[in-house]
Amino acid sequence: QGDVDLSKFDPSKFLRDFYWGEERQEGGRTVREYELVAEDVEIEVAPGVFYPAWAYNGQVPGPTLRAREGDRVRVTFKNRGAHPHTIHFHGIHDANMDGTFELVGPGQEFVYEFDAEPFGCHLYHCHVPPLRKHVEKGLYGAFIVDPKEGRSEADEMVMVMNGFDTNFDTENEVYTVNGVAFHYQRHPIQIKKGQPVRVYLVNMTEFDLINSMHIHANFFDYYPTGTKLEPTEYTDTKMLAQGERGIMEFTYGRTGNFMFHAHVNEFAELGWLGFFEVEE
Amino acid sequence: QGDVDLSKFDPSKFLRDFYWGEERQEGGRTVREYELVAEDVEIEVAPGVFYPAWAYNGQVPGPTLRAREGDRVRVTFKNRGAHPHTIHFHGIHDANMDGTFELVGPGQEFVYEFDAEPFGCHLYHCHVPPLRKHVEKGLYGAFIVDPKEGRSEADEMVMVMNGFDTNFDTENEVYTVNGVAFHYQRHPIQIKKGQPVRVYLVNMTEFDLINSMHIHANFFDYYPTGTKLEPTEYTDTKMLAQGERGIMEFTYGRTGNFMFHAHVNEFAELGWLGFFEVEE
Amino acid sequence: QGDVDLSKFDPSKFLRDFYWGEERQEGGRTVREYELVAEDVEIEVAPGVFYPAWAYNGQVPGPTLRAREGDRVRVTFKNRGAHPHTIHFHGIHDANMDGTFELVGPGQEFVYEFDAEPFGCHLYHCHVPPLRKHVEKGLYGAFIVDPKEGRSEADEMVMVMNGFDTNFDTENEVYTVNGVAFHYQRHPIQIKKGQPVRVYLVNMTEFDLINSMHIHANFFDYYPTGTKLEPTEYTDTKMLAQGERGIMEFTYGRTGNFMFHAHVNEFAELGWLGFFEVEE
Ligand SMILES: [Cu+2]
Ligand SMILES: [Cu+2]
Ligand SMILES: [Cu+2]
Ligand SMILES: [Cu+2]
Ligand SMILES: [Cu+2]
Ligand SMILES: [Cu+2]
Ligand code: NA
Ligand code: NA
Ligand code: NA
Ligand code: NA
Ligand code: NA
Ligand code: NA
Ligand SMILES: [Zn+2]
Ligand SMILES: [Zn+2]
Ligand SMILES: [Zn+2]
Ligand SMILES: [Zn+2]
Ligand SMILES: [Zn+2]
Ligand SMILES: [Zn+2]
Ligand SMILES: [Zn+2]
Ligand SMILES: [Zn+2]
Ligand SMILES: [Zn+2]
Repeated sequence: QGDVDLSKFDPSKFLRDFYWGEERQEGGRTVREYELVAEDVEIEVAPGVFYPAWAYNGQVPGPTLRAREGDRVRVTFKNRGAHPHTIHFHGIHDANMDGTFELVGPGQEFVYEFDAEPFGCHLYHCHVPPLRKHVEKGLYGAFIVDPKEGRSEADEMVMVMNGFDTNFDTENEVYTVNGVAFHYQRHPIQIKKGQPVRVYLVNMTEFDLINSMHIHANFFDYYPTGTKLEPTEYTDTKMLAQGERGIMEFTYGRTGNFMFHAHVNEFAELGWLGFFEVEE
Repeated sequence: QGDVDLSKFDPSKFLRDFYWGEERQEGGRTVREYELVAEDVEIEVAPGVFYPAWAYNGQVPGPTLRAREGDRVRVTFKNRGAHPHTIHFHGIHDANMDGTFELVGPGQEFVYEFDAEPFGCHLYHCHVPPLRKHVEKGLYGAFIVDPKEGRSEADEMVMVMNGFDTNFDTENEVYTVNGVAFHYQRHPIQIKKGQPVRVYLVNMTEFDLINSMHIHANFFDYYPTGTKLEPTEYTDTKMLAQGERGIMEFTYGRTGNFMFHAHVNEFAELGWLGFFEVEE
Repeated sequence: QGDVDLSKFDPSKFLRDFYWGEERQEGGRTVREYELVAEDVEIEVAPGVFYPAWAYNGQVPGPTLRAREGDRVRVTFKNRGAHPHTIHFHGIHDANMDGTFELVGPGQEFVYEFDAEPFGCHLYHCHVPPLRKHVEKGLYGAFIVDPKEGRSEADEMVMVMNGFDTNFDTENEVYTVNGVAFHYQRHPIQIKKGQPVRVYLVNMTEFDLINSMHIHANFFDYYPTGTKLEPTEYTDTKMLAQGERGIMEFTYGRTGNFMFHAHVNEFAELGWLGFFEVEE
C-alpha cells in the first residue's frame, strides 16, 4: 500500500507545527509577521492519489497561524497561483482587511493587518467566488489566538477535517484529517499516559454539510470556537458544519492504541481515521 | 440583473417588521389578536425567478408574530388557498391548539388561542401532510416571545433561512434569508457602529439537512432557542437543522460593509448572502 | 394497514426496558453481567416490510444496557452470525476492551469488561469494517450509565433514531425511532400529566448526516451526552449526528395527544413519527 511522499508534506509534523510568525516589537507592542503564498500545486492526498490543489505555502491545510490575544498580526500574502485569491480570516478586523473585496491577482501581493481577537480556535480561507471552488481546492488553514493569560500546559495539536473531490464531480472521494487519508493510522499520534492533550479542531470539509470527530475509549471537554475558558460539553463525539471549530481537551489514563475518526462511517472508511498511541 | 418587485414584498421592511397583533385587555390581561391568511400566490424569489408558493398573508416567510411572555395569543387563521392547511406553533399550548389534528379546509377558518410561552425565538408552520410539501411551499414564519422583563435595547431583526425548489425536483435551486436571493447584497442592512444588534435566526430550509449563518469580521453571542438569558456560545458561525433557531447578539465597532451568509458555500452562491453596512 | 408482528419485537416494551444485567458482588463491588448475541435475523421494520438485519439479541435496536457509575460491567458477547463482529462501547475503558481490534468470528465468544464511566447516555455498536455495513445492518443499542447519586424520579424511556435501507441502495427508505416505522403512532406512548419524563435519545442513523427530535406543544431540558447534571438548552427541537446522544427531560401539563418526530420532514413521513398520549 505504501505511503505518500512525506518529504513534501508530513501530517505528523503539521500536527504540532504552529506558525507564530516573526515576532517584533513596534511602539511597545508585539507584532507578528507571517507570509502566506498561494500556489497551484499537485498534492498527494492518499498513497498514489494526487489532487491538483490551490494551496497556501504549498500545503493543504495551510500553515496553522498562531498569535496571542492583542498581538498585531501582519500577513503578507503573495499570489503565485493562476487565479485571483485572498485570505479571509475568521476574527475581528477592519472591513478592508477582510479578504472579501480586494482580490489579489496572480503575481500580486496584499498585506492583511489586524489585532488578534478574540482568543479562540479560528480559521482562514480564500474568499474569491466561486467560493466552493476556492475552498475545495485547499485554500484554508487554522488560526489560533491564545488568551492573554495563556492556556494550561498540554500536548497541543491541530486537526483540520477536509475532503478531496479527486474525480471532479462535486463529491469527495477522499476524506482526511490534516490532508492525507489514513495518515495517523499508518503513523499513530504518540501521546503520553496522563498527559493532557489539547486539539484545535476545525472543519473545512466542502460539499458535505457536516463532519464529525469521535475519540475511542475516552471523553473530551469541548469548548465551542475556543472563545470561553469553560467547556460546554463532555462527550466523545462532536459534529461541526463547515467553518465551525472548537477545542477538545482530554487525557488518556491507559496505554495502548486508541482510534479516532469521523463518526460518519463513509468518511472514516475513505480516510478520516487515525490512532493515538498512548505510552507511559 | 435588476431586482425583484419590491412593491409586493420587500425583505428590507420584513427584516424589522414585528407583528404584535391587535392589543386588547380582557379580564385584566393582555390579549393579542392576529390574522393569518393562507393563499396560493406566485412570489419572486430572485429577479425574474418566480415560485408558486403557498403563503401566510401572501409572503414567504410569513409575518413575524411577536408577543410578550404570558400574553394571550389569538390567531384567526383563514384558509383562502386550494388545499387544507393549519398553523402549528412551536410553543406550549393545548393539544387542540396544536395545528396538527383539525385541518382547515379551503374557505374555512380556525382560531388558535394560547398563552405565549416560553419566552424565546420560535416559529410556526403548516402541519398538513405531506409535511415536506406544505413546508417547502412557504407556509412558515418566526414567532417571538419576549421575556416578561424584556431584553436589552438593540436594533432587532429577524432572519429566516430557507430555500426554493424552483424546478420541482425536491432540491433547492435558490437559497435565501427572508425570501429573496441576494436581497441584502443589493440592499445592505444599515446598522450603526457601536449599536447592539439582535438577530432572531430561524431555519426553515426544506430538503437540506442543515443550514448555517456566518458573519464577517465579528462574533456574536448565541442563545439557542432564545429561552435563556445567558448565551452559550461566542462564535461567528452557527449551524441549525430545520426547526432549530436562536438569538444572535453582536455590535460592530467599525464602519464599512461586512458580509454575512451561509457557511455552506453552495447555499451562499445560490442566494443566501448579504451585507451589513455599518455607519457612524 | 395492520401492524408488525409485535410478538417478535414490541417497541412499546423496548421503550422502558432497561437491561441491568445479572448483579453480583465481587470483592466488595457490584459486577453486572450481560449477554449479547449477534445473530442474522429478518426483522419487520414496518407492517409487511422486512429487513435482513444483523442484530444483538435478535432485535434492532439491541437491548438498552444500563449500569451505575463505577459498577463493573462484564458483557459476554457471542457471535452466532455469519460474519465477524464486535461490540464497541462508547465509554472509558482499556484498549483491549474497545471492540476494535479483536474480531469475534462466527461461533466465537468474547468477554468485554470495564468500569461503567462516565455517567451519561451512551451507545454501543459493532466496529468491524466496513463500518457502514455493520452499523446499517442494525448492530447497535443504547448504553446508559447512571450517576452514583442517581437522577431525579421520572418516567424513563429510551429512543434510538435509525433508518433502514430496504432496497440496498445505500439510502434509507424507512426511518424509525426504536426500530418500527410509525409504531408510536399506532401505539401512543402513555404518560401522565404532571409526571416528569426522561428520554435517553441516541442517534444511530446511517447514510444521513443528521437526524433530529421535535416534541409538540412542549419544551425539554437537554443534557448533551448526559454527562453533566445541568442542562445546556431548553428547546423543542434538537439535531444529532450519528454517535451523538443526550437526555431530554420534560413534563406535559395538559392531557391529550402530542406528536413527536424528526423535524426532517422526509424522515417523519417515512416512519420517524409518534405520539405521547397524556392522561390524568
Ligand atoms: Cu476562496
Ligand atoms: Cu470508532
Ligand atoms: Cu404544512
Ligand atoms: Cu464569507
Ligand atoms: Cu460494526
Ligand atoms: Cu410536528
Ligand atoms: Na468526486
Ligand atoms: Na462523499
Ligand atoms: Na429543484
Ligand atoms: Na441544493
Ligand atoms: Na435504500
Ligand atoms: Na433518505
Ligand atoms: Zn482563491
Ligand atoms: Zn467509539
Ligand atoms: Zn469562513
Ligand atoms: Zn398546508
Ligand atoms: Zn468569515
Ligand atoms: Zn416545526
Ligand atoms: Zn459486525
Ligand atoms: Zn412543533
Ligand atoms: Zn460509535
